[in-house]
Amino acid sequence: MRVLGVDPGLTRCGVGVVEGSRGGRLTAVAAGVIRTPSDQSLGDRLVAIDEQLEYWLERYGPDAIAVERLFAQHNVRTVMGTAQVSGVAIVAAARRGLPVALHTPSEVKAAVTGNGRADKAQVTAMVTRVLRLTARPTPADAADALALAMCHIWRGSADSRLAAAVAQEGALRTARAAHLPVERPSASLSGPSRSAGGVS
Amino acid sequence: MRVLGVDPGLTRCGVGVVEGSRGGRLTAVAAGVIRTPSDQSLGDRLVAIDEQLEYWLERYGPDAIAVERLFAQHNVRTVMGTAQVSGVAIVAAARRGLPVALHTPSEVKAAVTGNGRADKAQVTAMVTRVLRLTARPTPADAADALALAMCHIWRGSADSRLAAAVAQEGALRTARAAHLPVERPSASLSGPSRSAGGVS
Repeated sequence: MRVLGVDPGLTRCGVGVVEGSRGGRLTAVAAGVIRTPSDQSLGDRLVAIDEQLEYWLERYGPDAIAVERLFAQHNVRTVMGTAQVSGVAIVAAARRGLPVALHTPSEVKAAVTGNGRADKAQVTAMVTRVLRLTARPTPADAADALALAMCHIWRGSADSRLAAAVAQEGALRTARAAHLPVERPSASLSGPSRSAGGVS
Repeated sequence: MRVLGVDPGLTRCGVGVVEGSRGGRLTAVAAGVIRTPSDQSLGDRLVAIDEQLEYWLERYGPDAIAVERLFAQHNVRTVMGTAQVSGVAIVAAARRGLPVALHTPSEVKAAVTGNGRADKAQVTAMVTRVLRLTARPTPADAADALALAMCHIWRGSADSRLAAAVAQEGALRTARAAHLPVERPSASLSGPSRSAGGVS
């Protein structure tokens, strides 16, 4: 199964495509960040993001998308833009009949590192190791998008709760077994290299 | 100028089309509510709203859309859905090259009633009177959408600040002059009747 992870944001929207199965090997297909300049109008920014997401859906043909589920944040202005982008991403996928899953940041952290309170460095280190990337994905938004896609493959769709529960248990075990301390980044530099999507 | 006002919401999204000019008479072209059932998936609901908004844009051909600008609310879950719908509405309009304006609830209240803290009943009464409707628009979401469109025509686009300032002054004067107490609903029942948009 191939999943497009979307870490929504108006200034930087992370996108990452991961392919693999629950019990099998995961591979990073592409990752990148969609940026829009803050001096553009909200409408122009959302349209630009919509067009880029359409490009990613068309180019990589995922079977599902996984979008970060939003909760209250301190900066209301920021969270509104983030929610608007998530709405645009969900519609873009649902219009194509693709299943849309929402995962909270702690679900993603738990699935990827085995710890729902892991910090960003730990998540990035696990993403880099599990996907056998030759370098840590930057910026953080691209790594977060890959983590979302990994989480979705390991956890299963939120629609199938039993499958999700089983998968989570499996994912936690896998993640714990494969856990790599942050201070020792992956040594497997010969894995398939990450193809950075053509979005600047 | 013809403006589509959108009061975003996942369960009920108000839509209203108003035609007129800043100094001239305003006419209600259509008003309605787009509803989506809460047992549908978020993706299906946003797609349904997107399709209905496309229908309204196609059917009524507005020159601009006015969307309620969101601020912090108590219920975070609700505000996220509202923000997602607003993102979908903004993209739908901006994709067609239409100007998108955001107005806060207090800007709308001030423009329509002359009082930024007016209650819903006062806003609905003014909408009913100014647009010479034969009945108060229901539900409240449809009235709010008409008020947004009226506000936009009276206030002008947020992009042109000088024009907006002048318009607001004019709108406030107009609104005060035409103010009708809530307890005395409009007596002009012979005005052009409101055509309720075909959305149930």
